[in-house]
Amino acid sequence: MSFIRNNTRSIKLGSVTIGGGAPVSVQTMTNTDTRDVAATVAQIGRTVAAGAEIVRLAVLDERAADCLAEIVPESSVPLVADIHFDWRLAVRALEAGVDGIRINPGNIGGADKVRRVAEAAGARGAVIRVGVNSGSMEKEVLARHGGHPTAEAMVESALDKVRLLEETGFRNIKVALKGSNVMNTVAAVRLWAEASDIPQHLGVTEAGDAFSGTVKSSVGLGLMLAEGFGDTVRVSLTAPPEEEARTAWEILRAVGLRSRGVEFISCPTCGRCEGPLFQLAAEVRQRLGDVKAPLKVAVMGCIVNGPGEAKEADAGIALGRESGLVFVRGRQVEKVPFDRLVDVLEQEVRNL
Amino acid sequence: MSFIRNNTRSIKLGSVTIGGGAPVSVQTMTNTDTRDVAATVAQIGRTVAAGAEIVRLAVLDERAADCLAEIVPESSVPLVADIHFDWRLAVRALEAGVDGIRINPGNIGGADKVRRVAEAAGARGAVIRVGVNSGSMEKEVLARHGGHPTAEAMVESALDKVRLLEETGFRNIKVALKGSNVMNTVAAVRLWAEASDIPQHLGVTEAGDAFSGTVKSSVGLGLMLAEGFGDTVRVSLTAPPEEEARTAWEILRAVGLRSRGVEFISCPTCGRCEGPLFQLAAEVRQRLGDVKAPLKVAVMGCIVNGPGEAKEADAGIALGRESGLVFVRGRQVEKVPFDRLVDVLEQEVRNL
Repeated sequence: MSFIRNNTRSIKLGSVTIGGGAPVSVQTMTNTDTRDVAATVAQIGRTVAAGAEIVRLAVLDERAADCLAEIVPESSVPLVADIHFDWRLAVRALEAGVDGIRINPGNIGGADKVRRVAEAAGARGAVIRVGVNSGSMEKEVLARHGGHPTAEAMVESALDKVRLLEETGFRNIKVALKGSNVMNTVAAVRLWAEASDIPQHLGVTEAGDAFSGTVKSSVGLGLMLAEGFGDTVRVSLTAPPEEEARTAWEILRAVGLRSRGVEFISCPTCGRCEGPLFQLAAEVRQRLGDVKAPLKVAVMGCIVNGPGEAKEADAGIALGRESGLVFVRGRQVEKVPFDRLVDVLEQEVRNL
Repeated sequence: MSFIRNNTRSIKLGSVTIGGGAPVSVQTMTNTDTRDVAATVAQIGRTVAAGAEIVRLAVLDERAADCLAEIVPESSVPLVADIHFDWRLAVRALEAGVDGIRINPGNIGGADKVRRVAEAAGARGAVIRVGVNSGSMEKEVLARHGGHPTAEAMVESALDKVRLLEETGFRNIKVALKGSNVMNTVAAVRLWAEASDIPQHLGVTEAGDAFSGTVKSSVGLGLMLAEGFGDTVRVSLTAPPEEEARTAWEILRAVGLRSRGVEFISCPTCGRCEGPLFQLAAEVRQRLGDVKAPLKVAVMGCIVNGPGEAKEADAGIALGRESGLVFVRGRQVEKVPFDRLVDVLEQEVRNL
């Protein structure tokens, strides 16, 4: 199944193109103290290994901004500085070499300061993300919308902020409209696409811990992406940023937009299952975690649905009573006892 | 945000109404040996506590079918017997008192056997679910669709099977079209709604382990539910069935259809966070796990988005440097040191 992507203008964030039909890129945000260069660089490396293509860092003070100069050369992906309240930190972060900043033009100190930040970003070809977050909306905008961060309020707030930037002639902009309410975020993202061709950074903010955050982000991003919205995504989880990147990739794969690494298919098990399926599935995932090729591997518990699924996959196993069948590209290749199943499957996958 | 539900006929599965605009019900399936009555009854109890409203059990042989007579009276929710190949097991399960059976009318032994099963179900007012699974499609149907379980192939297979049942005069039917490919399942569900008013049981089958299964089910069910499809849902995970029920509820909440228990909002933490947020969030979830009222509780790490989110929630905390602010229904009620924060929040939530 294919679908039509919403048409947006194309911008460059360092080496990554965002919008204009470019692949939807995966972002995350470090949770280290940015002033701890070693810890931050190490975390960036882990998130990149997990699939992050853009990494954002919180910049709370001048020391953090200055540390960016040491962090940027160590990162293999473009970095974005997240800044609130202080326009000088934004300029300092840009001077330190980040490819983008995330600011709220409404709390940076007036039109003159917004101009100074836009000039600094423009001189370096950097991107400015205008972020609207349902948890930190302007009182005046909220007041015009019954006191609540509705979709209309979020879009109005973003348009106001974009106008501040565009009045300075700056166009290298992306926006993010993030609400903690999934369907509200979806509504805001749809509305934005009617109002502007500025590319969208998608996310469901403050989504919750790994469990509820994964569900809310998957439902929300899934819906928005399947409707053709979104040029770059971040999954927010109260969990390490590597998990955010992994989850984002899993969502992109589920909607059929991009894939990376092995897709694992396995069944929930039922009374029909006569083998140690949970164990085998976990072992297969662990053994094949380093495979980067976009392969489909099935681990199935019975002979009702097992062989069918295993045949549709690139490789797979279907459990019987004391042994399992190994399939490769639709053909049954071997019948193997449980204790050798994972070895044989791994070998077959690596041969592909 | 509200949306229009797809119009389906209404059927009764025991005490649960499915279709015709009834609330989307949550199902799961046991993975115990159905012949182990004690283990099965205990697992049903745990899944019901986690929110299951209908529970399915695999029935592999006559002993399993007979055990249903002991299991049914111990279950507070309607039970469905999952049967393959043997029409006599279906009749036996119905005699044992289940409110529904899941069969594949195509592999039960011909039109005459289908009639016998439909008569037995009709006599007891039981529901028959026609299940189409991309992993176990008829060779003839596949052949007509290029050898692959496409959306069209799945719908054709379901229509063939429904016809077999309806020819006997039986109407108490629901269907499930499940593929391991998310977008393919979505396409099949959309097509079905154009072809028939028979209510749909939604699921993404063989979705994978708890991680990828949660993402795929959330994306798939989220999309289908948000488009107005689906009358009952099952999340399939290679994980205990209680997790399936919890995940289903989280999805229903995310799309704004139903809610149950506390909704936890928390932030992903970033360099701005100065307190032990992961720990506090986990502790809050654990302490409030027994609360059934649909409340929204926020646990936020900083003063940028924290107070805004905490105010939108029924109760919440926002961390500062060494203490946190506690909010209740939009009002800041107290500033509390970290070590007493969860106690104070719990007390405030229980007062609500």
